[in-house]
Amino acid sequence: MSVPSNLAMLTDLYQLTMAAGYWKHGRADSEAVFNLFFRKPPFGGGYAVFCGLTEVIEFLQSYRFGDEEVAYLATLRGHDGKALFPRAFLDYLAGLELTCEVAAPPEGTVVFANQPLIRLRGPLLQCQLLETTLLNLINFPTLVATKAARVAQAAQGDPVLEFGLRRAQGIDGGITASRAAYVGGCAATSNVLAGQRYGIPVKGTHAHSWVMSYEDELQSFEAYAAAMPNNCILLVDTYDTLEGVRHAIEVGRRLRGQGQELMGIRLDSGDLCALSKKARGLLDAAGFHDTRIVASNDLDEFAISQLKRDGAAIDVWGVGTKLATAYDQPALGGVYKLTALREHGDAWRYKLKLSEQEIKISLPGILQVRRFEQDGRYIGDMIYEETLSRPERREMVPYRGGEAWTIPASATSQDLLQPVFRDGSVLVPPESVHRVRARAGEQLAMLPEGVRAMIQPDPYPCGVESELFRLKTSLIKELRESTETTTA
Amino acid sequence: MSVPSNLAMLTDLYQLTMAAGYWKHGRADSEAVFNLFFRKPPFGGGYAVFCGLTEVIEFLQSYRFGDEEVAYLATLRGHDGKALFPRAFLDYLAGLELTCEVAAPPEGTVVFANQPLIRLRGPLLQCQLLETTLLNLINFPTLVATKAARVAQAAQGDPVLEFGLRRAQGIDGGITASRAAYVGGCAATSNVLAGQRYGIPVKGTHAHSWVMSYEDELQSFEAYAAAMPNNCILLVDTYDTLEGVRHAIEVGRRLRGQGQELMGIRLDSGDLCALSKKARGLLDAAGFHDTRIVASNDLDEFAISQLKRDGAAIDVWGVGTKLATAYDQPALGGVYKLTALREHGDAWRYKLKLSEQEIKISLPGILQVRRFEQDGRYIGDMIYEETLSRPERREMVPYRGGEAWTIPASATSQDLLQPVFRDGSVLVPPESVHRVRARAGEQLAMLPEGVRAMIQPDPYPCGVESELFRLKTSLIKELRESTETTTA
Repeated sequence: MSVPSNLAMLTDLYQLTMAAGYWKHGRADSEAVFNLFFRKPPFGGGYAVFCGLTEVIEFLQSYRFGDEEVAYLATLRGHDGKALFPRAFLDYLAGLELTCEVAAPPEGTVVFANQPLIRLRGPLLQCQLLETTLLNLINFPTLVATKAARVAQAAQGDPVLEFGLRRAQGIDGGITASRAAYVGGCAATSNVLAGQRYGIPVKGTHAHSWVMSYEDELQSFEAYAAAMPNNCILLVDTYDTLEGVRHAIEVGRRLRGQGQELMGIRLDSGDLCALSKKARGLLDAAGFHDTRIVASNDLDEFAISQLKRDGAAIDVWGVGTKLATAYDQPALGGVYKLTALREHGDAWRYKLKLSEQEIKISLPGILQVRRFEQDGRYIGDMIYEETLSRPERREMVPYRGGEAWTIPASATSQDLLQPVFRDGSVLVPPESVHRVRARAGEQLAMLPEGVRAMIQPDPYPCGVESELFRLKTSLIKELRESTETTTA
Repeated sequence: MSVPSNLAMLTDLYQLTMAAGYWKHGRADSEAVFNLFFRKPPFGGGYAVFCGLTEVIEFLQSYRFGDEEVAYLATLRGHDGKALFPRAFLDYLAGLELTCEVAAPPEGTVVFANQPLIRLRGPLLQCQLLETTLLNLINFPTLVATKAARVAQAAQGDPVLEFGLRRAQGIDGGITASRAAYVGGCAATSNVLAGQRYGIPVKGTHAHSWVMSYEDELQSFEAYAAAMPNNCILLVDTYDTLEGVRHAIEVGRRLRGQGQELMGIRLDSGDLCALSKKARGLLDAAGFHDTRIVASNDLDEFAISQLKRDGAAIDVWGVGTKLATAYDQPALGGVYKLTALREHGDAWRYKLKLSEQEIKISLPGILQVRRFEQDGRYIGDMIYEETLSRPERREMVPYRGGEAWTIPASATSQDLLQPVFRDGSVLVPPESVHRVRARAGEQLAMLPEGVRAMIQPDPYPCGVESELFRLKTSLIKELRESTETTTA
C-alpha cells in the first residue's frame, strides 16, 4: 500500500543495466552533464509552471540501495538463467552515495520549451541512475500546476477548488495533484491528506447522498445546517435545482435567526449558466446577496471561459477530474538528455541526440537560462552554455535558427538554475507550498499577456545564445557527416 | 515523500463533514447500502477489467484515525473561525472501527456498465467515509488493466512490455499502473519497484544515452554486449537505424563466438513498419532468425493494430505513456451511490439518484450480479436485488427498458459479488498478481468475440432482473411526482 520513503528502485531496469555497464568498463565516474526539459508546453499553451522540486530534493536526500533492494536485484536473471548483475556491482550500489550536483530553477518558476528544468553534473553512473525518477517527479506536478494556472486564469480571480481525488491516477496521483494544483493557483482542495501534509486549505460540505439519506430535501438541508452551521454550502440539484435553491433560502433564513449565514449553494449538473442566473435572482430577491454560488461538473479552463463569457452568476469553481488528471493531455513529455561528457582532466565532449525531427534535436553542453526583465515584465529568456557562451553580449537566435536579436542593455537579468544539491547535501532551504504558489503567481503576472492566451498564445521570446547555437549547428553537421560516411 | 500506510485521510473533506452530521443526528449507525460502479466502459470498448481490490482490502484493514489525524482535523475552522468538528465527534472518529461488510467480484473479473464493483453494507457513517478512497483505489487500476487488455489483444499474443513510469501520474501512479498493466495482460514492466513489490517480471537493456556516451555506435554496442552478454537487446536508432542494425549484427556474431546470443534489437523512432521489415531482412540474411525486434514510440492498441495489419516484423511491443496514463481517456468515471437505507428493524427504503440524463439514474437496492455461461462462453449478466428479485426465473430487461428476455435453463451461473471484509476481518485469502492476471485472461477469452472489438463493440447482454426493473421504475415515478408536487 505505502510507497517506500526511498525511491531508488522507482526506476526503469535499463538504468541499472546501463549503470552495470558503466561500472564494468570503469566509466562510472566519467563526468557527465544531463538536462531535463520538455519540447512543447502542454495544453496548446505558451508556458509551464515548474513544480515537483521539493520531492526531487527529498528523493535525492534519501537515495540509497539497502539490503532489500540489493537482495531483489540479485534475483534477476538474464536469458541464460544466470545472474543479470555481478555481485561486485551490487556491492558497489550498496555503497553508493550521491556526489553529483543538481541544479534547478526555484519551484514555481514559469518555464518554457527546451530550457533545462533539472541539470545534473557528476559521475555518469549516478546521473544515469536518477533519470526515470526525476522525470516521474517533475513531469506530472509540472503538468498539473500548469493546468491549474490556466484554470485559475479562466476564473478571473474567482476561487478555484480542486476536487479531483476520486478519479486521480492512484493514491499519490491524488496527493501530488492537489499540491500542484494549489501551486498553480487553486485556492483550496477537497483532499484532506493533502491539507494535512502540506497545509493547503481544505473545503467541502455535503454530497447528494446526504440529501438522499433523508425523506425530503428541505429536511436534509435543515439537518446539515444544524450539524454544521459555520460551513453551510447546500448542494441544491439532487432533485430539482431551483426548488433546491428555495429550500436553501428557507434554511438560510433560519440560520440568520441563529446569527449564522448561508455561505453558499452548489450546482453540480444541468445548464450551469442558466441555473446560476436564476439561482442568483432567487437568492438576491430573498436578501441573500452574500450567499455564493459554487459550480462544478466537468469543468476546465475552456468550460469556465465560456461560462464567464455567457455571464454565468458563478462565484466559486469546483474543478475535479479534468484538473487532477490533466484530462486533455495527461502527460508532459519531459525528456532527459546527455549533453556533455569528459574523462578526468580532459576537455568536455558536447553531446546531442540527432533526429529526423528537427524539434527532437537537443541542445548540447552545460546549459543555463538567463531571464531578462524590463518595466516589471519578462521580455525574453536566453539559453546559454556555461563554458563557451558569452551571455553578456545578450545576443541570441531562435531555437530553430533565424535572425539574431539582442536584449537591450537596460533590461535586468537573472540566471534561473541554481545548485540545489551537491555531494549529498541540500543547498537550499526548504520552502512552504505557499511560498512556491506565491512565486508562480508573481511570475505569471510578469508574462507578456499574449503568452498567457489559452489557445494560440504568442510565443515567448526564448532564444539560444549565439555561440551555443554555433556549437549545436557544428555538432549536427559533424554527426550527420560521420553517419553518412559509415552508411555509405 | 511517502504515502502513509493508513489512508483514512485520503478522502474528500465533505465525507467528514457529512459524517459529523450523521453522528450529530444519531444516524451514524443507520444501515446503508452503497454501490460503486461505472456507467460506460472506457476507451469506447465493451468491457472493463476489475482491478484494485487487493489495495482496497489493505486500505480497509489499516483504516483508523490516529492522534495525528485527529489533531489535524481539530485545527480546521468554519467561516466564523470556530472549530469545524466538535471534539466529541473527533473522539468518536478516534475510536472508530469498521464493522461494515464489503463485497466485490474477484480481482481480474471482467465487468460491465452499471454492475456493482464494490458493494458496502453497514453503518451509514462508515459507508460514507469510505467513498472517496474506494473510488481512488478502483478507478485508476481498473482503467489501466482495461487499457492493457486492449493493447495485449492488439498485439495478438506477442509480449507487451509496459514502459510508462517516467511519464506516469506520480510515484504511485507509476507503481499502480505497472501492476494493473500486468493484470490486464502485459508480460513485463520496466519498473523495478513494481517488480520488487509484486514479483512482476522486469525488462530493460539500454537507452540512447548509452550509445551517445561512446565515440561511436559500434563501440557502444560492443561495450554493452561485453558488460551484459545475457541481456543483449541493442537500441539501433540513435543515429541511423539500418546502420545500427548492421552494427548489432556485427556484435551478434561476436556474441555467438562466446556462446551467447543477440536477443534482440529495439526500434524507437521513425517508420516502425518499414524499418522493422528491413531490419528483419538484414537479421535473417545474417542468420539471426531468432533475434527479436522490439518496437516502441507512442504505441497504443490502435497503433499496434495498424502495424499488425501492415505486416510489421515486430515481435515485442514496448508501450509507455499511452498505457500508464490511459492517455485517450485518463479517468474512469466510477461513481458511488446510496441505494438502500433503513433504521434498525425497519424495512429497507430503496434509493436512487434522479437525473435529467436517463443514463445517470442509478439502480436501487442491495445489488448482486449473476453471470451465465454456456459452452465455455459468457452469454449474459443479470443485475438483481437481493431482497426482492427472483433471479431463479432468469428473466431480465435491458437497462433502459425494452423487451424482456430469459436465459435458457441449460446455462450455468454464478454470482459475482462475494463478501471480502466484514467486522474488521478479511474474508478472502490474499491472491498473487499472477493469479489475478490469469483470471482476467481466462475471462477475456470467454467473452463473445464481438464484445472485445476495439471500436464499436457488440453490447454484452447485461440486463436488469424484472422485479428490480419494476422497483426502479416505480421509484422514479414516485420521486418525479413528489418533486412536481413541491415545485408546483
